[in-house]
This record gives sequence, C-alpha cells and structure tokens, in this order.
Amino acid sequence: MTQALVFQLQSLLGPAHVLVGGDLAAYEVDWRKRSHGKALAVVRPGSTDEVAAVVRACVAAGTSIVPQGGNTGLVVGGTPDASGTQVVLSLQRMQAVRELDAANMTVLVEAGCVLQTLQEHARQAGFLFPLSLAAEGSCTIGGNLATNAGGTQVLRYGNARDLCLGVEVVTPQGEIWNGLSGLRKDNTGYDLRDLFIGSEGTLGIITAATLKLYPLPAATLTAWAAVPGMDAAVQLLGMARARLGAGLTGFEVMGQFALGLVAKHYPQMRVPFVHDSPWCVLLENADHESEAHARGQFEALLEAAVEAGCVTDAVVAENIAQARQLWHVRESIPLAQAEEGLNIKHDISLPISRIPAYCAETDARLAREIPGIRLVNFGHLGDGNLHYNVQAPEGGDPAAFLREQEARVNELVYEQVRRFDGSISAEHGVGSLKVDGLPHYKSPVAIDMMKAIKRGLDPRNLMNPGRVVRA
Amino acid sequence: MTQALVFQLQSLLGPAHVLVGGDLAAYEVDWRKRSHGKALAVVRPGSTDEVAAVVRACVAAGTSIVPQGGNTGLVVGGTPDASGTQVVLSLQRMQAVRELDAANMTVLVEAGCVLQTLQEHARQAGFLFPLSLAAEGSCTIGGNLATNAGGTQVLRYGNARDLCLGVEVVTPQGEIWNGLSGLRKDNTGYDLRDLFIGSEGTLGIITAATLKLYPLPAATLTAWAAVPGMDAAVQLLGMARARLGAGLTGFEVMGQFALGLVAKHYPQMRVPFVHDSPWCVLLENADHESEAHARGQFEALLEAAVEAGCVTDAVVAENIAQARQLWHVRESIPLAQAEEGLNIKHDISLPISRIPAYCAETDARLAREIPGIRLVNFGHLGDGNLHYNVQAPEGGDPAAFLREQEARVNELVYEQVRRFDGSISAEHGVGSLKVDGLPHYKSPVAIDMMKAIKRGLDPRNLMNPGRVVRA
Repeated sequence: MTQALVFQLQSLLGPAHVLVGGDLAAYEVDWRKRSHGKALAVVRPGSTDEVAAVVRACVAAGTSIVPQGGNTGLVVGGTPDASGTQVVLSLQRMQAVRELDAANMTVLVEAGCVLQTLQEHARQAGFLFPLSLAAEGSCTIGGNLATNAGGTQVLRYGNARDLCLGVEVVTPQGEIWNGLSGLRKDNTGYDLRDLFIGSEGTLGIITAATLKLYPLPAATLTAWAAVPGMDAAVQLLGMARARLGAGLTGFEVMGQFALGLVAKHYPQMRVPFVHDSPWCVLLENADHESEAHARGQFEALLEAAVEAGCVTDAVVAENIAQARQLWHVRESIPLAQAEEGLNIKHDISLPISRIPAYCAETDARLAREIPGIRLVNFGHLGDGNLHYNVQAPEGGDPAAFLREQEARVNELVYEQVRRFDGSISAEHGVGSLKVDGLPHYKSPVAIDMMKAIKRGLDPRNLMNPGRVVRA
Repeated sequence: MTQALVFQLQSLLGPAHVLVGGDLAAYEVDWRKRSHGKALAVVRPGSTDEVAAVVRACVAAGTSIVPQGGNTGLVVGGTPDASGTQVVLSLQRMQAVRELDAANMTVLVEAGCVLQTLQEHARQAGFLFPLSLAAEGSCTIGGNLATNAGGTQVLRYGNARDLCLGVEVVTPQGEIWNGLSGLRKDNTGYDLRDLFIGSEGTLGIITAATLKLYPLPAATLTAWAAVPGMDAAVQLLGMARARLGAGLTGFEVMGQFALGLVAKHYPQMRVPFVHDSPWCVLLENADHESEAHARGQFEALLEAAVEAGCVTDAVVAENIAQARQLWHVRESIPLAQAEEGLNIKHDISLPISRIPAYCAETDARLAREIPGIRLVNFGHLGDGNLHYNVQAPEGGDPAAFLREQEARVNELVYEQVRRFDGSISAEHGVGSLKVDGLPHYKSPVAIDMMKAIKRGLDPRNLMNPGRVVRA
C-alpha cells in the first residue's frame, strides 16, 4: 500500500521531486535537533495543483501529511514522527512572488518564498515588508503564517497574522480554497484566514498569501537606554508610545546578566551601560519625515524620561553602523548564552502591566528553590514577550542541571505565567513540543472548541496529526 | 414546553428581565425596518453566568437564540424571525467597563457597553479607543465585534477585529470560555478569538472583550482636496501614506453627485469645490507631536500632490470647527440621499488598485442598462470600501424603481464585484439579508468550511440560525 502511494506520488510530481532514499535529515530533523523523525517520503510539489493532488493521493491511502517550510521552527511542528509512515510535503519549490500591487500596497507570494527574499523584493519596489526575525534567511512565508511568527517589529506592525490579507489553502480533502483576498475589509462569513494562520498545518496547507506592504520610512534611528528597573522600562514604554506614536517600531528589554554574557563572550563588542544598570532598553524610531526630525523626537523623549526618573543614561546611535552594533548586541544574547552552556528557554508573554511583578516574584521563587540559578531575561517588552531563560548555576554541570531541573523549572515558570494571565508560547507555537502540556495552561472549553474545529475540517486526522491539539 | 421555558427563564433572571408582552418592537424590528420579527421572549441577563444559564435552558428546550446588542445592524442579523419561537438575548444590561489597564494599554469591557461610552471612558483616562462609526451613540461593543465593524478610522487602526485582544464567550453548550487575553502575542492554538469576531452570534455569544487602547494624538487635522478622477484619488492615497505614514487616519472619497445632493438639500452647508471637481477627498492627519507639525506635513503633501497633478485644489481646516464642518459634509451624504428619495445601497470593497477601473466600467454598464440612473458613490477609499449607491432616475417614481430594478442593479453591481475580486459586504456583515446570496459570490470550498465549523461548534443549530451560513 505505501509503496503504491510512493509510485503514485512519483507519477504525479516526477521522481525527482519524491525523495525516498539518501540523507533526508534536512527534512526529518527539526532545527534545534530535538526530534529525529523518519518519513515515508519527502515530496516537493511545484504548484498548488500538485499540492492538491498529493493531498488527495495521501488521503486515499490514509497516509498523514506533515507540511514543511524552511524547517526553522522551534517547537517540532514541521518534521515527521519516527514511524516512517508520514509524507513530508515541502513547499520549498513554490517560491514565486506572483504579483506586487503598488497601489493596493500588497504582494502575492507563494508559501515557499524565503522571508528575506520577500523583504528584498518589497524594498526594491519601494516598500517595507516588516516581518523580521532571526531565521529570516531561511524561514518561509508559509511557515511564518502557519506559526503566526512574531519577531522584532510586532510592536508597530503586528504578528504575521496582522500582515496577511488572504491565503490560498489546500484543504484536508485536497480541494483548493482561493482566499487570496487583497481586501482590507471583507465581512462575508467566518474568518477562515485567521483560522489557518497559526494552525501549524493541522487544518490544511497554506500554499500562497496576499500580504500587506508599508511605505519605507525616511529614517530609522536606534537608541539605548539604561533603566533602573523593569517597572521603569514599562514606564518608558508608555512615554515612548505617547510621544512617538506609530514611529516606535522596536522596544527590547535586556537584563544585566544577559548583557554581561555578551560582554564576557564577545569582548570585542561594546555593550553600553552593562556595568552600571540592572536593565537596558533598545528603542527604534522609524520616521516618515527625516533623520533630523527623528533625532529631535528621540532626544526629547529621552530627556523627558531622564527627568521622569525612568532612564538613568541613554545614547542615540549616530549612524547606521552604530545602530547595527546596538541591534547586534541584542541579537547576540542567545549566542552568548549558548557559549555559557546549556540552558532552558522560554517564550512567554504577559500583560505588560504585570511584567515587573511577574519577574520579581518568579525570580525570587526560582532563586529560593534552585540556589545559584542564573536568569537570562530579555525580550520584546513592547509586545509583553519575554525570553525568560534559565542558566545553570555557575561552575555546575549544565547537562546534569538540565536533566534534573528542566521539568521543575518549566513547571514553575509556566505556573507563574498562568497566575499572571500569560501565555506559555508567545511566538513559537505549540508543535509537538507543547501539545501535551498545553491543556494544563489553557481553558478546557478552548481545547474542546479546537478539537471540534479539527474534527470538522480534518475528520480523518491526516493533516500534521499530534500537533497543536490531539484530535 | 415553550411556556415552561419562559417560566424557567423568569426564575433564572427575575420576571423583570424576561419580556414577553407589550411593545417589543425595539427588539423585534431591525434598524432599517426591513424585518418585523416576533420573539418568544426577550431576555436581558445581567451577567455572564446568567447568559450561560439562559443558553443552557434554551438548549435543553431546543429553542434557538438570537443575540442582540444595540440593534443597529444593517443586514438583519440581530432580530428574531417571525415564528415567535426564538428567544432574543439582549446584552444591554451588561455594560460595565470592568478594568482599564493603562500600562498594558487595554480596556476590559462588557458586550453591552455602548461604543461612545467606551470612547469617552478611554479619553478620560488619556487614551484613544479608535473605533468610530455613525451608530456609535447606540451600537454596542458586543455587536461591533460580532459584525467586525469598520467605520472611519480603519485605514490606521483596522476593523473591530484588529482592536480586540481577547473575548469572553458563552458557547452553544452554555459553557463560558474566558479568552479575555490582554496579550499581544499568544500562539497557543487555533485563533478562536477571530473566529467569534464577525460570526454574528452564530457560534456563541460574546459577553466581554479586552480591547486595545492608543495614545491620544496631540493634534488632528482635516483637509479637503479636489481631485480630477478616481485614479488621481488612488495616487493621492499612495502619496499620503508614504509621507504621513501612520499619521494618515482618514481618507474618504466623494463623488460630485453625492456632494451635490448635500449642497442641494442642505444649502446652509458649505461644500468645497462641489461645482468644479468630479471627486473630492477628505484626509485626516493625526499627529503625536503638535498641530504646527501636522499642518506643515499636510501642506507639504498637498503641494506635492498639486505638482504631481493628482490634486487640483485643496484646503486644510484652520480649526476644529472647520474640521467638524468638513466631516459633517461627508457624514451628511446618506441623509441627503434619503432626502432625494429611496435608493439602493451597497457596501462593497475592492483592491484599491482596481477601484478606478471598477467604477468606470460599472458606471458605464449601469448607465447603459438603466438610462438616467444616478450614482451616489462615496466611501472609505483608504480601505478599498465604497458605498456604491444607486438613486432612481430624476423625476421618476423611486418606489417603482426599487421594485422593478433593485434585484437587477444588485446583480449587476455584485457581478462586477466578483469580476474585480471584491467583496459584497465590506463592513456590514451577512445577517439574513445576504445569507442566500452569498454562495453566488463566495467560494464553495469556503462555504463548506464555514458549514463544517458551524456544525462542529453548534451541532444543534440553535445559535442565531439562518444567519451567515445555512447549517
């Protein structure tokens, strides 16, 4: 039966696009190498019609399908299980930018298009496509939408969901839904678009999307501010939103220990205020007028913040090179953390107003329960999103620490998240990594509705089964 | 059986909140008086628990429920049918603003809160709640969300959907889902929030919501520009977005005939450029810096637009009174149209780039097929949303015109919408008015998915049946 399916897939796509032998690790192992799966076959359709044909063949054979984009996900959502019975459907050959509509400020792009390729395509046409994240050189638009990716510009432009006007989807029945709307208003029924966005391939396969473009700003400036505490950082955020309005495009908070790791492991990098301040904030201001105007606005904000006591010192980058250096410090935190040794990562979100109390309380509880524990706390404060990471005590064996403490640390951190009305997955998704933990932290009514939707749209449970929600 | 249900509802809510006699027209007749329904009872629960209890009682009795907010909808979605067997569930008693969280920039409000009340509550706390539409003095937040309301600020702030972070819902099983997230990022499963938003009470009842707040702008200016054609209006929109960025909060287009009706029926109103220009545009610029800055930006934009040939004349309001007058002209178009006589209204959206061709072609087809027909075309061009309305030929009998031509006009207008990849309901929803027409203009794959979701969440079809999609 499975061999017959492989033959059928080969006749549909051509043998070159049905991979069954050789090293398939690039498709079978997830990005962080937490899961080593085994696929029945990896298929690489070149068109929406081919995707639909593959789905129909798999459904007829009762074979489940794992859609895959750039395979850069962090929650094991896009690689097969170890059974050797699943078909991995890679969208990588579908990478065309089908159309850029300047007057409508939209771009129609296929799912396999790499995010950075789209950013550049937009820029060449004089527009900004604002989604931006660490994996942008290899992640794909389809994966970005399937996981509702976040990144560094969410504060101003929203998540992937907010940047999408319409999707084309192959359903679990192998039908094609052309929902490629370029409309900003369309109230004709249930919001299917947003249901597919963030569903991680469990309800159907996104094959193309119509995305929003924005005007390129005239100037983008970056500032770095030392703040005396997390509560001061929250106060600064409020001031920045009021004074810069939508010009505020980035607001990243970084704890002293996290920045200290950057200074320690990359001594050639200059980390402003790292010795003097418990927290630093990186701010970005995108201006539609001029650099001079942006600078004036930025300096006035920071002066007012110093006066209000929520900033102790600050610097505005003089030029693009300096701005890049500041961002580079921020982006080097995860690497510096890796240099320091194994650690436990979290991707949590909280109401912004509750973040100071969350951190104070959770820091204290962790310190009490696991003496010597070190917190690498940083994140997108403007979105309420913290990467609240935990490093083993200094000098200990990090591997043993992870083995012995990971479950306990996760439980404590997530229990606190629940108490503070937060989310245990802000921007990374559920995948298989969090699918069984999720019911502990999410309303059973919501889980039941998710199951009803999954059963309604994919009654045979063949689309990426075991991810997001157990059918 | 039905009498037993009424007794049970009375014991649950108290007899004062179960209306069964007297004049119930305010609940049974829709806003535009197109449908005169008859309810078994009108219930007015005062809390989420009471809503849930009502739903459980109705479900046990097999009685269907019609949720209702301010009853200002335009598509007959919130009033009962004529059978006398449905229970109208009014949210009007649930109007509390439960909590305003300044640091998180959110407000938690009950479904029955009137939009204007919320706007004022936000303003008093120093924030903007940007949803704004004609019915704001009586429509409710629950209704705004159930219909994904639009209005005049969508260009900058989005529809009701974009302003909502979380909802509390009573499900068709009478369970309460607390999805009142104050989070800007939460990727833990399917997007149930956006599924309920815009579902017009057919999947459950929204009882409360957490909504986004924005900083109050320092100054808001209004300009009025004469443009030589719809293509020039689209060009001006592009220039305004590039130069004002997110400062551009309004962009309304108005045809000469529409403005001429205002000048004719309200001669005391000054309508700029009405005699000289085929189209006018109203622009709004909200500035986070100062009025002087906004004025400089606005004037520079308009000068550049004159130079580029897409504006022939323009004026910036000198003060708030003048700005209000300009908006008042725009808002008086529907009233002036009513003064002129019965007419056929449409609420369509199109890709902005295709609007000039749509209008040219559809205007010509209508003129050819129905000689003397008059087009009252105006709308939110920044959102691609036109109120492409049709007035009877001058001197004829408008009632006879409607009787004889309404179906033909609708068919022609909507057929053109389909050809141009538009939507037949941009911001008003489906209700019962468009439920049977929708399948002609929407993908059958999408309709099937909507039905599957409806059956999955409301298997007994008791929530606002016959609206949005036939189960």
